[in-house]
Amino acid sequence: MLKPFSILKILVNFTSRKKMFLNGSLTSLTSLNREELQAFLDSIDTFLFDCDGVLWLENQVISGSVEVVNKLRDMGKKIMFVTNNSTKVRDDFFIKARRMNYIIEKDEIVTTSYLVVSYLKGLGFKQKVYLIGSRGIAQELEAAGIKYHGVGPDVLQTVANTLETFHMDKDVGAVIVGFDEHFSYNKMIKAATYLNNPDCIFLATNTDERFPVGGNIVLPGTGSILKAIESCSLREPTVVGKPNSYIANCLIKEHGIVPSRTLMVGDRCNTDILLGTRCGFQTLLVLSGVTQLKDVKKWSVSGIKEEKDLIPDVYLEKLGDLLPFLE
Amino acid sequence: MLKPFSILKILVNFTSRKKMFLNGSLTSLTSLNREELQAFLDSIDTFLFDCDGVLWLENQVISGSVEVVNKLRDMGKKIMFVTNNSTKVRDDFFIKARRMNYIIEKDEIVTTSYLVVSYLKGLGFKQKVYLIGSRGIAQELEAAGIKYHGVGPDVLQTVANTLETFHMDKDVGAVIVGFDEHFSYNKMIKAATYLNNPDCIFLATNTDERFPVGGNIVLPGTGSILKAIESCSLREPTVVGKPNSYIANCLIKEHGIVPSRTLMVGDRCNTDILLGTRCGFQTLLVLSGVTQLKDVKKWSVSGIKEEKDLIPDVYLEKLGDLLPFLE
Repeated sequence: MLKPFSILKILVNFTSRKKMFLNGSLTSLTSLNREELQAFLDSIDTFLFDCDGVLWLENQVISGSVEVVNKLRDMGKKIMFVTNNSTKVRDDFFIKARRMNYIIEKDEIVTTSYLVVSYLKGLGFKQKVYLIGSRGIAQELEAAGIKYHGVGPDVLQTVANTLETFHMDKDVGAVIVGFDEHFSYNKMIKAATYLNNPDCIFLATNTDERFPVGGNIVLPGTGSILKAIESCSLREPTVVGKPNSYIANCLIKEHGIVPSRTLMVGDRCNTDILLGTRCGFQTLLVLSGVTQLKDVKKWSVSGIKEEKDLIPDVYLEKLGDLLPFLE
Repeated sequence: MLKPFSILKILVNFTSRKKMFLNGSLTSLTSLNREELQAFLDSIDTFLFDCDGVLWLENQVISGSVEVVNKLRDMGKKIMFVTNNSTKVRDDFFIKARRMNYIIEKDEIVTTSYLVVSYLKGLGFKQKVYLIGSRGIAQELEAAGIKYHGVGPDVLQTVANTLETFHMDKDVGAVIVGFDEHFSYNKMIKAATYLNNPDCIFLATNTDERFPVGGNIVLPGTGSILKAIESCSLREPTVVGKPNSYIANCLIKEHGIVPSRTLMVGDRCNTDILLGTRCGFQTLLVLSGVTQLKDVKKWSVSGIKEEKDLIPDVYLEKLGDLLPFLE
């Protein structure tokens, strides 16, 4: 057991390393000595893990991640999975994670489908939702007893036909935008028309422009669909996903986390790390997903405040590299 | 005939009125005296008219506009119609205008369908176009001998199906975005994929967020579709329509207009008047369309440079109010 003074000294050293990092000398967590690393781990009660790019890549586990997550739980740490993906419900992630041998409970998984519906519940919302989205959000709405319509194909015949046949549902009090592979001009007309009423709530799951898929084909994400709806509705939505701090309020209220004793582990600086900066979490970037070290180096020498907020406290090549230090 | 000195004096007065206008005291063209108005008209060789909201509202002529336009032509003025609408070709506007008794020739009508294709021709473009748009642009491309695909419904079955069946056409060298009532997620995938090649040209007709239709239903415009494509392609397009100054280069080169002796007449400050400000045209706002006088009053007391650029030199309730001064 380290004496309090030693811990203090180590934390001062660690803080100065973080400062060095901010000056362009990037610190890998594995470069800390054993005492420093122990002090770092002791300063954290809750680990928040982004999923895709940290725990797995599509259907492939990232080597070593399962062992690190389960070992941290053994050490008494609180573990949560936090994802911006709105196409699936918590059950889907639970099944996927368990199949990969992650030890996790359903209520330790936070998805944007869950968050967007939790947001409405928090408002005591009793009306209907016009939903640009898919099964994930639909199932969460059903579980909360909130009526909705809009899911599935909605193909325009002619504009004149839509003008004639579309009758506004006066019970619609919110528009939710999540990922929707059936997004169409007809859906734009309907969302913009409902949102023309300033009392209609405008919610979105996340702002990711693209999905991180390999190959030549680009798959647009929810953020790109959202831009169209923002533009034709002339309104700004409340976005519940990372990097919006709504998720932190939810984690503090429902799970009692303490921000300064929480570590956000992610592969995307403009969602995961920015969330951490905004919420006062500690932040760890893993290089097994979207953001590359050269991006962080660029931001670390930039004078732009918005770019400084994207810089993590520390980084690792991949989460599994932490394993030797836990044993 | 006025003596040069009188004209100078009148123009000085007129300029000071414009200054007053900028200070919040808005000047209607009808408040000028006969000599001032004559000097104003003498300072203009070319009249550029926006169509919807100035000459007509959908299929209804705006009272007095036909007589003013035809009278100005009789007085020896050059007349041009300039519209951001990309759904129609010049022939359609020609037929519509003639039916309303406007005296106009086809080559005096400038549409964004025409401009976007003229832009490609100016580059000596020989490849194919992936087109998010409708008949208007398609017909102009055909007239220019440029091959294209993309027009009409393109409905996604499943994302997996699109990933499997979509094969990039290696001859596509440009993506054009105009108004497309069949806009869909499948079209977003294809546009973003072509634009992932930085050599692929990215063009758009205009950025209007909505169509100015009455009733409860909101009809999203090209600008809203464009926001989605900008977001998923992570690129900025070249926009040929108002308020982009490309149109002015085109009018100077092909029609020999002199900007300082040209009057832009429009009903939208963020397209028509802004174009005029940027290109050094004189500007006249008519209140028979989108922009209202209260908007201009707000900008005239604002300290924001971008808002000052939206302020017209003079305004009229409607174009027809000029008629008594022309007779």
